[in-house]
Amino acid sequence: MPDLQDYLRERAAWIDRELDAAMPSADTPPRVLHEAMRYSVFSGGKRLRPILCLAAAEAAGASPACAVLPALAVELLHTYTLIHDDLPCMDDDDLRRGKPTCHVVFGEANAVLAGDALQALAFETAARLHPYAVLELARAAGSLGVVGGQVADIARGGKAPSRDAVDFVHERKTGVLFRAAVRMGALAGGASHASLDALTVYAGRLGTAFQIADDLLDAAPAPGAARAELSPHLAVYGVEEAARMANRLIDEAVAALSILPPERTEALRGIARFAVDRKH
Amino acid sequence: MPDLQDYLRERAAWIDRELDAAMPSADTPPRVLHEAMRYSVFSGGKRLRPILCLAAAEAAGASPACAVLPALAVELLHTYTLIHDDLPCMDDDDLRRGKPTCHVVFGEANAVLAGDALQALAFETAARLHPYAVLELARAAGSLGVVGGQVADIARGGKAPSRDAVDFVHERKTGVLFRAAVRMGALAGGASHASLDALTVYAGRLGTAFQIADDLLDAAPAPGAARAELSPHLAVYGVEEAARMANRLIDEAVAALSILPPERTEALRGIARFAVDRKH
Repeated sequence: MPDLQDYLRERAAWIDRELDAAMPSADTPPRVLHEAMRYSVFSGGKRLRPILCLAAAEAAGASPACAVLPALAVELLHTYTLIHDDLPCMDDDDLRRGKPTCHVVFGEANAVLAGDALQALAFETAARLHPYAVLELARAAGSLGVVGGQVADIARGGKAPSRDAVDFVHERKTGVLFRAAVRMGALAGGASHASLDALTVYAGRLGTAFQIADDLLDAAPAPGAARAELSPHLAVYGVEEAARMANRLIDEAVAALSILPPERTEALRGIARFAVDRKH
Repeated sequence: MPDLQDYLRERAAWIDRELDAAMPSADTPPRVLHEAMRYSVFSGGKRLRPILCLAAAEAAGASPACAVLPALAVELLHTYTLIHDDLPCMDDDDLRRGKPTCHVVFGEANAVLAGDALQALAFETAARLHPYAVLELARAAGSLGVVGGQVADIARGGKAPSRDAVDFVHERKTGVLFRAAVRMGALAGGASHASLDALTVYAGRLGTAFQIADDLLDAAPAPGAARAELSPHLAVYGVEEAARMANRLIDEAVAALSILPPERTEALRGIARFAVDRKH
């Protein structure tokens, strides 16, 4: 396999081309809606979730091409959640990845609706494959998944959370969608029950580790920051224990893959190490 | 068949029971989210879309029970669009059916997220039947359907619209979801191509007529209202022509059903007359 950075870049470019083909063009009426959808979808994401989906199909012994539809679905869904999370009534973020957020550029109403339409497009795309893909995605997306995590995150307010509370939010805001990405890819690739179970464990551990690593990266510029300025997760666990947890979770994620032929899981193992070692 | 009012009441009660069973209970964490979802789903809707879905399955010669899942899906999706349409950044409505709207009771962030979760639940429910149900629902829900209609409606602002513009909004905000409800029911009932085509025409005409009748009902308390206070549709077409259009559309809707055995379409014909004759 090529260098991991080259691999990630090449896969992200593939996903970008497929997303472009799967979405209505920017001049389709209503134009402002399709411009807003495309603005947020093509705003420099790493495409980690769809890349995991393709790699899971390969881990199951299939061609990555068979998992393109669920890969697109998971990225469309992820993008909609970012648009809604950034809204003034939620996290009220004006910038994402250094660019103005969707509601800043297109207005709040259009941002809500661009997110709504991306969610519908995600399910349409998943349904072009199979209903199991819709079920996996819907459970990850719904009130017991990503949306439930965001509600719990907001409900916390400024209060000091418990370990249970931060685990609840982490699991739902990141874990469930990583797991859906990997499971949809594995199912698209015809994974056996044992392979699917192993890949599900891998994805769950990776998702949590990825979220912790994100929190650590955010905290890195201010190593001596007050605990209150850290993410709830770091405030509860402390920076050192969180870093140890992330590494342990990645070890467990990689160990879960051991029942699969190693030549099929090289990418998944590389991505797991990258998730905690990355500098951005 | 019993009296139409009895029929509608009995069917709505059936849908209510099935919705209750299909949704997470109000004490499932996060509680505020599931309370908000249930508050809006059980807020006195007529359940017209799911009733049409069940009746379409019967028109195709099947039991209405086989169309329960898509019937629930279309009502969950419809409810989410109402919650988002009422938001302060959109129509900013404090009341719906005489009750405080979701964001008034649960706050804006929770209302956005309750809508998001209901959309996911709608697709999960449709996927429990078949991917065609997801595709029908997703196309009706997406940027070329309901969401596109709402964007065009907002984009209009205070400007006087053209006939094309009001038709664009009417078709998308009401027509597409009526059509999806009937088509999903017909497909669940194993409709032939010819029956499906006839039912699709019926649903499209009914949806537009229903929307016009809604506009006429809203205008009724103020018969001499200035054109600017009327709905865009009535302002463009005038009250008399709009009423004639609605009746003509209903005639066309009923005529389209003539290829089906009349004993199977009694409910659909009754609902069509009810759509334009109702007093609320």
